[in-house]
Amino acid sequence: MSLKEYLATRSAEVDAALDAFLPKAKEKPATIHAAMRYSIFAGGKRLRPILCLAAAEACGGDVESAMPPACAVEILHTYSLVHDDLPCMDDDDLRRGRPTCHKVYGEGMAVLTGDALLTEAFLILAQTTPAKRYPGAAYVAELALTGGSTRLIGGQVMDLEGEGKKLTKAQLVKIHESKTAALLTSSIRLGAMTANATEKQLEALSVFGRALGLAFQVIDDVLDVTQSTEVLGKTAGKDAAVEKATYPAILGLEKSRKEAAKFTREALDALKPFGKKAQRLREIAEYLLKREY
Amino acid sequence: MSLKEYLATRSAEVDAALDAFLPKAKEKPATIHAAMRYSIFAGGKRLRPILCLAAAEACGGDVESAMPPACAVEILHTYSLVHDDLPCMDDDDLRRGRPTCHKVYGEGMAVLTGDALLTEAFLILAQTTPAKRYPGAAYVAELALTGGSTRLIGGQVMDLEGEGKKLTKAQLVKIHESKTAALLTSSIRLGAMTANATEKQLEALSVFGRALGLAFQVIDDVLDVTQSTEVLGKTAGKDAAVEKATYPAILGLEKSRKEAAKFTREALDALKPFGKKAQRLREIAEYLLKREY
Repeated sequence: MSLKEYLATRSAEVDAALDAFLPKAKEKPATIHAAMRYSIFAGGKRLRPILCLAAAEACGGDVESAMPPACAVEILHTYSLVHDDLPCMDDDDLRRGRPTCHKVYGEGMAVLTGDALLTEAFLILAQTTPAKRYPGAAYVAELALTGGSTRLIGGQVMDLEGEGKKLTKAQLVKIHESKTAALLTSSIRLGAMTANATEKQLEALSVFGRALGLAFQVIDDVLDVTQSTEVLGKTAGKDAAVEKATYPAILGLEKSRKEAAKFTREALDALKPFGKKAQRLREIAEYLLKREY
Repeated sequence: MSLKEYLATRSAEVDAALDAFLPKAKEKPATIHAAMRYSIFAGGKRLRPILCLAAAEACGGDVESAMPPACAVEILHTYSLVHDDLPCMDDDDLRRGRPTCHKVYGEGMAVLTGDALLTEAFLILAQTTPAKRYPGAAYVAELALTGGSTRLIGGQVMDLEGEGKKLTKAQLVKIHESKTAALLTSSIRLGAMTANATEKQLEALSVFGRALGLAFQVIDDVLDVTQSTEVLGKTAGKDAAVEKATYPAILGLEKSRKEAAKFTREALDALKPFGKKAQRLREIAEYLLKREY
């Protein structure tokens, strides 16, 4: 199977599982369930759940056991987008080429939709079959720590507080680690945990996830400068408009591209101990670096 | 120990546990941790955690084992208040006599503070020691179902959508079950689960929790009409001002008081099988009905 076919297959499997896990659109109260599904089925690439599934495979596990955490990380990611897009936060009208949740359902409902998605993520995660080394609560602790005030939410706080200020490269890396790399890393770790990965395997995958996440975020920042709103499916040039600290703003485009390449090499090196089993993870990392940016 | 002493003792124990569980105010990023603590340590009565602890005692368990879920339900309750107070929701400036979270920290930070509290609730819940009948994931599933789109959040959706409309008594009961009774019931059930309660015991406690929650909400609605802002510590007369459906609005004050008394009797009846061990739960229910309303 080519990488393209692999991504399409896994993405379809994730969509089917999300559809089965989420409350039906007609379930009462219908508005919130329609809004949850509007935000989840918005044409996302399913990068985080696919990494979760591929990490399970890299550790000798199976896709089925890794599906609850795969769906949980995608749902948690979506909640963070719904809240980040709110007028009192990043104030964005477009996401993946469509009006954002609050533009369609109103601000109050968008706050509640994010809340409901976050809660649903933990409900689904609680259904993960425990592995020998990892009881059910271990998955919850992993995702709650990553989604919490010192990582994912902490990153958004630093981002909000950094607007209009000159940040150092170290401060920017800290924001990217919190906002992007932490959840990618947990997606990968959770998949590996369902495959009963060793502590050593989890550590190697954490190095992989961090480097991949940092590469991913640098590329996103570069794309915000070089691409049109049409291509991105979200408002282009937004970062510069709100004077957000980004890699291109601090280092310039060329150095930013080199940083992305460096992080990708770091990521690939971390996968060496897994040999052929990590082939998909390797291909995904290479694919992310090959985006036109 | 008198009930007053019992409530004061347990409340202090809960406060100490919350203080130990929550990230320190100086931990970075400091703003969000200060905002989380501002909202948690706002002089709440700690009704839900105390019910959790008392339910554990009623089932022969101990206070220490029930402390993680006790703190988790209080934190989840607080997140829901922080988000409900937002301008795009109930738009309230006062809570427990103090400016609400968004008045002090701004709207964006209040959204993130609620998110962080919700996530923290699951992180703490994951630390509950499993009982023989209840693995760690069972506590997470219980609270996530209650906090989700069909119960706690669903109730807030129904509440928002019901403003300015004439609701039936049945619709109002449904909102109260979702918004108030569900979390009180789960607080009680989670405490009982740490004490390895039987299925039959959990069912009886669910009947108790529902009736107690409905009584509690009717009384709150009555107080909103009869008491001053100063006494309530939150804006009085708010419900009528936004044409919110309430018991007094539908049934009048006298019939509302009778409904509250009926629900309280239902609650007390459900405790009969527990005998003397449920004495504290019984006293708390009676105390709630005896509030001046």
